[in-house]
Amino acid sequence: MTAMPLDATLEAIGPLDEAAMSGARATLDSLTKPPGSLGRLEDLVVQLAGITGEVAPLLTPRTVVVVAADHGVAARGVSAYPSAVTAQMVANFVAGGAAVNVLARHTGAEMVVVDAGVATPIPMASQGSRGGRLVSAPIRSGTRDIARSPAMDRDEAQAAIALGVEIARDLVAAGNRAVIVGEMGIGNTTAASALTATLLRVDPVKVTGRGTGIGDAALAAKIDVVRQSIAINEPNPDDPIGVLAALGGLEIATLVGLILEAAASRIPVILDGFITAAATLVAAALSPALPPRLIAAHRSAEPGHAAILAHLGLVPLLDLDLRLGEASGGVLALGLLDAACALRDEMATFESAAVSGPTA
Amino acid sequence: MTAMPLDATLEAIGPLDEAAMSGARATLDSLTKPPGSLGRLEDLVVQLAGITGEVAPLLTPRTVVVVAADHGVAARGVSAYPSAVTAQMVANFVAGGAAVNVLARHTGAEMVVVDAGVATPIPMASQGSRGGRLVSAPIRSGTRDIARSPAMDRDEAQAAIALGVEIARDLVAAGNRAVIVGEMGIGNTTAASALTATLLRVDPVKVTGRGTGIGDAALAAKIDVVRQSIAINEPNPDDPIGVLAALGGLEIATLVGLILEAAASRIPVILDGFITAAATLVAAALSPALPPRLIAAHRSAEPGHAAILAHLGLVPLLDLDLRLGEASGGVLALGLLDAACALRDEMATFESAAVSGPTA
Repeated sequence: MTAMPLDATLEAIGPLDEAAMSGARATLDSLTKPPGSLGRLEDLVVQLAGITGEVAPLLTPRTVVVVAADHGVAARGVSAYPSAVTAQMVANFVAGGAAVNVLARHTGAEMVVVDAGVATPIPMASQGSRGGRLVSAPIRSGTRDIARSPAMDRDEAQAAIALGVEIARDLVAAGNRAVIVGEMGIGNTTAASALTATLLRVDPVKVTGRGTGIGDAALAAKIDVVRQSIAINEPNPDDPIGVLAALGGLEIATLVGLILEAAASRIPVILDGFITAAATLVAAALSPALPPRLIAAHRSAEPGHAAILAHLGLVPLLDLDLRLGEASGGVLALGLLDAACALRDEMATFESAAVSGPTA
Repeated sequence: MTAMPLDATLEAIGPLDEAAMSGARATLDSLTKPPGSLGRLEDLVVQLAGITGEVAPLLTPRTVVVVAADHGVAARGVSAYPSAVTAQMVANFVAGGAAVNVLARHTGAEMVVVDAGVATPIPMASQGSRGGRLVSAPIRSGTRDIARSPAMDRDEAQAAIALGVEIARDLVAAGNRAVIVGEMGIGNTTAASALTATLLRVDPVKVTGRGTGIGDAALAAKIDVVRQSIAINEPNPDDPIGVLAALGGLEIATLVGLILEAAASRIPVILDGFITAAATLVAAALSPALPPRLIAAHRSAEPGHAAILAHLGLVPLLDLDLRLGEASGGVLALGLLDAACALRDEMATFESAAVSGPTA
């Protein structure tokens, strides 16, 4: 257990490439627009250069990875939906009928669906023409109920992280230039709230929200479950993998490895909502150099999401009250990244268009 | 002058279609996602139904209209760029090298560039393969210097509005299902600030910003120019067309007609930045039923923009510190509208995908 396969990954995550960023800035300032007038789109162009080490990186091919798993705590009624919906939605991702399928298709992204621990049989139809490819690699059949015991063993958390690392390596080997991460797991905002409260050392009430849309009474009960999960497990916030094992989420643990390895490979990683942010919080605790390599797609309606983004210094691109997960916000933001790259590559320069520069 | 051609237009702008909106809501709630979890994208689907009177309207074909004109006040150094840039950028729009050309191409939008009063000769290259079609219809050769006299005569303001109405009618006749409006005019944030301060009855310092990127001293001088323009012209805020004639913007006046007629034709109108918002402020003063028919693409860095959006009750989709104009923010937001419509039309339903609904 001492020779963690993650060491090489963590070592490879360094600072952004300043030379590439300068080159990107020079490109932007040559284009027919007032300097900086494209606002955050210009910041994105510079950040993409810094991440990849290329002045004008492409973002194709790109893949959306949706990691799915179940949560023992769902039996406590913390979600508006039954656990069986996790497996049903995996089938929907493979068939191509979910929101993320529609969005991925319109942005030319491939899709991979990872079963990292779905607890009920997946009612599998055949793969649809625009559906995701299923990677079946369950670490265990859902987590234990965190309000009573640790979500998983430490070995299992590390195995899930290793699974994420392996998926990222496969995506890089296949030539992917951008990865959009998402998740599915009934009950997973409860796990994410417990992780967030622990790692940010804040009261659960500040980082626990309505998830799929529960009412006031269920929200109060959910906050109690989060409190109890932390009280029972007594996680040590200075031990991120211990926190992850205790409070769980097999999909969250898999995302930790996926995000770290993609970042180590200098591939832009586009985050989605609260769950992917919680995974990022664990990952950034392991690698403080990580956050500048990530793109926060949006800020969701979940209060914990905003808290994590602020903590990591990530400014979301969109704020549309999304609370679906699945990488849906990430794929929406990909459209803005594509626009930023198109502007960088296709606009005329002041010189080519014979447009006058500033008078001063 | 009594039989304004605008009367029929204003009369045609009524409330949103409630039946179509209910139909759109029912469609959304049948899709495999928690109700409301797509946030503002769901609001857009409902709004589009209300605007068009169709449950699931298409947004294609669509056209970006960029209206250009010059401002006498630019001679006072209120912009970082010389007036000649207006004509140069019109040539750039026609050649296809501007930011809006790149964005329009990637969203499959046609583009029309309207010369409503450009003051210097347009250094016209031939139309590029992805360039805009030029409509040359100058009302006059730029406005007068508003710090000394009215921008234009009342007749000219009405002629510009009529030009906008005519352009909208042509677009509707050509089958367009969405219009994205934008502008180009060195000096036009000064005119927009004067209009906004007058119509919102606020101090110019609250609604005057850096435009193309002027420094502190130039900003202070610009605020003085706005104050002087209002003091000299003494516009009556209860006479929107009088305010428009006094403080001007031939492109702004044209946009007033364009926005009103497109709204009257039940075509979704996507606004861009501060200048299109100032035109909307005039248009909404003529037609209080207008705002729900409009989509505010983004909130720019200009302080007057946020003030207008708040006044009209329009919530912007994007907040990316854009300050380019040209309809660039509008075309970016079109991507979100397209995504919303694709989700509405292509997602599986709970029934078709055999996914369980909420437990409660």
